[in-house]
Amino acid sequence: MTLHLNLFIFDTGHHEASWRLPQSDPLAYLDIAYYQRIARIAEDAKFDSVFLADSPVQFGDPGRRPSGRLEPTVLLTALAAVTSRIGLIATASTTYNEPFNLARRFSSLDHVSGGRAGWNIVTTAGDDAARNFGLDSQPAHVHRYERAAEFVEVSKKLWDSWEDDAVVGDKERGVHADSGKVHVIDHVGPHFSVRGPLNAPRSPQGHPLLVQAGSSEDGKDFAARHAEAVFTAQQTLEEAVAFYADVKRRAVAFGRDPDQVKILPGLVPVIGSTEAEALAAEEELDRLIIPEYARENLAELLKVPAESLALDEELPADLPAEDEIEGSKSRYTLIVELGRRERLTVRELIGRLGGGRGHKTFAGTPEQVADTIERWYRSGAADGFNIMPAVLPSGLEVFAAEVLPILRQRGLFRTEYTGSTLREHYGLPRPANQFSLVAV
Amino acid sequence: MTLHLNLFIFDTGHHEASWRLPQSDPLAYLDIAYYQRIARIAEDAKFDSVFLADSPVQFGDPGRRPSGRLEPTVLLTALAAVTSRIGLIATASTTYNEPFNLARRFSSLDHVSGGRAGWNIVTTAGDDAARNFGLDSQPAHVHRYERAAEFVEVSKKLWDSWEDDAVVGDKERGVHADSGKVHVIDHVGPHFSVRGPLNAPRSPQGHPLLVQAGSSEDGKDFAARHAEAVFTAQQTLEEAVAFYADVKRRAVAFGRDPDQVKILPGLVPVIGSTEAEALAAEEELDRLIIPEYARENLAELLKVPAESLALDEELPADLPAEDEIEGSKSRYTLIVELGRRERLTVRELIGRLGGGRGHKTFAGTPEQVADTIERWYRSGAADGFNIMPAVLPSGLEVFAAEVLPILRQRGLFRTEYTGSTLREHYGLPRPANQFSLVAV
Repeated sequence: MTLHLNLFIFDTGHHEASWRLPQSDPLAYLDIAYYQRIARIAEDAKFDSVFLADSPVQFGDPGRRPSGRLEPTVLLTALAAVTSRIGLIATASTTYNEPFNLARRFSSLDHVSGGRAGWNIVTTAGDDAARNFGLDSQPAHVHRYERAAEFVEVSKKLWDSWEDDAVVGDKERGVHADSGKVHVIDHVGPHFSVRGPLNAPRSPQGHPLLVQAGSSEDGKDFAARHAEAVFTAQQTLEEAVAFYADVKRRAVAFGRDPDQVKILPGLVPVIGSTEAEALAAEEELDRLIIPEYARENLAELLKVPAESLALDEELPADLPAEDEIEGSKSRYTLIVELGRRERLTVRELIGRLGGGRGHKTFAGTPEQVADTIERWYRSGAADGFNIMPAVLPSGLEVFAAEVLPILRQRGLFRTEYTGSTLREHYGLPRPANQFSLVAV
Repeated sequence: MTLHLNLFIFDTGHHEASWRLPQSDPLAYLDIAYYQRIARIAEDAKFDSVFLADSPVQFGDPGRRPSGRLEPTVLLTALAAVTSRIGLIATASTTYNEPFNLARRFSSLDHVSGGRAGWNIVTTAGDDAARNFGLDSQPAHVHRYERAAEFVEVSKKLWDSWEDDAVVGDKERGVHADSGKVHVIDHVGPHFSVRGPLNAPRSPQGHPLLVQAGSSEDGKDFAARHAEAVFTAQQTLEEAVAFYADVKRRAVAFGRDPDQVKILPGLVPVIGSTEAEALAAEEELDRLIIPEYARENLAELLKVPAESLALDEELPADLPAEDEIEGSKSRYTLIVELGRRERLTVRELIGRLGGGRGHKTFAGTPEQVADTIERWYRSGAADGFNIMPAVLPSGLEVFAAEVLPILRQRGLFRTEYTGSTLREHYGLPRPANQFSLVAV
């Protein structure tokens, strides 16, 4: 029994001011050697996977912090070339892609990496993204999720369109494949009409690991129905336990084995040799946040004018209800509840969000970080964690050198990879092929 | 003065029966190590670039020959990781992509490769491709080209949306970029509305090298207006000279420097130590073609029933005119003219097409191949060649070992790279940024 660890790679670290530290390169996010170095450290540390977030839009003010993004399927392919075992999970939008193109790209990544591809399925919140694709505003939350469900259905048909034994490669007879085992899918639905087949044989994992990260009601249902791993932001152990039970229950209701939906809350560790040292490092980072920038960003998330958020007062009482939010519903609620529960001023809330954008931050010694991980894991809050170092690569190096040995000593984390595909790392089966199943 | 050489990578080679040779791996097209080996050989040989064709569709009968395709931007990224100088040209469709997504992927490839990305712009012929994207049949040829022109215009705006000096990376003041140098593009046109900016700084080459490959009237105009390199299929020196002059003349008419449109006809060399040996190798390959499969393919291209093509007779007299073809117009005309000019039987025509799908095949000694290249180059038919080995990797190895030394002796080809970007290899300038230009 091992817990699962995913490394969420994000620029110079998840803390929004990490790029201002002396050791950070502000242009690291364009430097492929930087990403390759991080992926190699994570693979040496036997992480299950690395992961890249994404949205097809310039997010926020480019002046504020390094905010550009290389396209994740491209970037992860460059990481595949310099690693051999670690999984590679790319975020991609179902709202602003076509299923044939995207299913194909993930199939290619799975082929190129020898079975290490994962897809974090997102519906992409925000009007600015919509405006890069000919729309005036984003489609409604419920419609984005309807499209996402059909998108996944079409993708699975395409991934299965070549049966596993379709390729025969018989040079003597001049027969490359058994054409009867390559299927037109003829999908016709409300959002998509796709004939198929995909133009490549089935990939090593059958299809990429399917990951989901939104925690709204629509998001939880989508996760329970389709996801094999779930990234989630949970601030307290109680909420995390409730979320975990809720998603597993929903998975059972959809006829699925709950063990085949792995739940990984985000954790932003800030590690010091003493607790005081860790807290000082966190304070140093928070001091580098520019509150005027951060307030604008918060105001955008909360759908209120920036002026209505006084830095040294609590959140205003009259914020919209989650129902009215068409963007990132669950992140909205998490932030409002965090501010209210802990009675944080806007400035304090900004500090908390600056560390991990709503994910749980934890400053402490390696022992304390390992304790937190173990407590959450044993309490039924998590099958593993989405590790989000405040500063990269140093936060990853310290986590690997100081926290992992403790987890290993406690029998909680692998010392070697036992499989070679991403699915094998997560203990998930290779999916059966729907076209082979219906054969007589 | 050097001629330019592009390696067109295609499965186990361009001859459609190459996969049936004893040394060929029928699954090479899924094997990233195979592609990486070829790219390294081409880089050691100082080719300007490697190139991958593409269409988002399963082309033809999967039983016939290895016909699957990994997605080119993904595949070339994996090649970028194991090479450092050679250019990387991916084909991508303007009909079945969104400009934001595709412009972004090429920007990412250019960043990841350190300025080695090229985009072969295609409009994608065929109803089967259309049916993978919600359409019943392909948009008309002229409409595909109108969309392509606007697609390129939007892409260039996105690539320019960050001025070259937009990123300042000032840690002290906490300013990552000068927001005034990151531009919303607000493009509104008949096919696309795109707000921008792109979510990444301008890439090393400014934008990828723009390549074009269709030789219809629409295609030639598009090339003359937008392309920096042109791949073309030319069967005779006379036709190649006329095509070369025509495209350069059109470029001048559009106000461009004709030297900044490099023209590279395709050449399928089959090399032997004697001419007889080369011809025997070609015959051996042709013998492995299965004519029934190939006839079906030819019939599809010619828009006639397969039964109307008798293997041992010439092409029927009543074929449609190019005007009536909505697919690959120029390839259609080339094939019909080749059959008529040389009075080939359908079986012979299939043999000729099996070698290079309409590109010029040439069997001979290294000296003869070098002579052909020199004659075309000095006659004003070519600025370089799109080298399409009949068998890979052996055909490339022989070309590099036997033909290149002759070309070098004659002062026609480089012995070392003199630049580090794809544009530098082709002697093309880094484009100015349209947003910087309009600044006061």
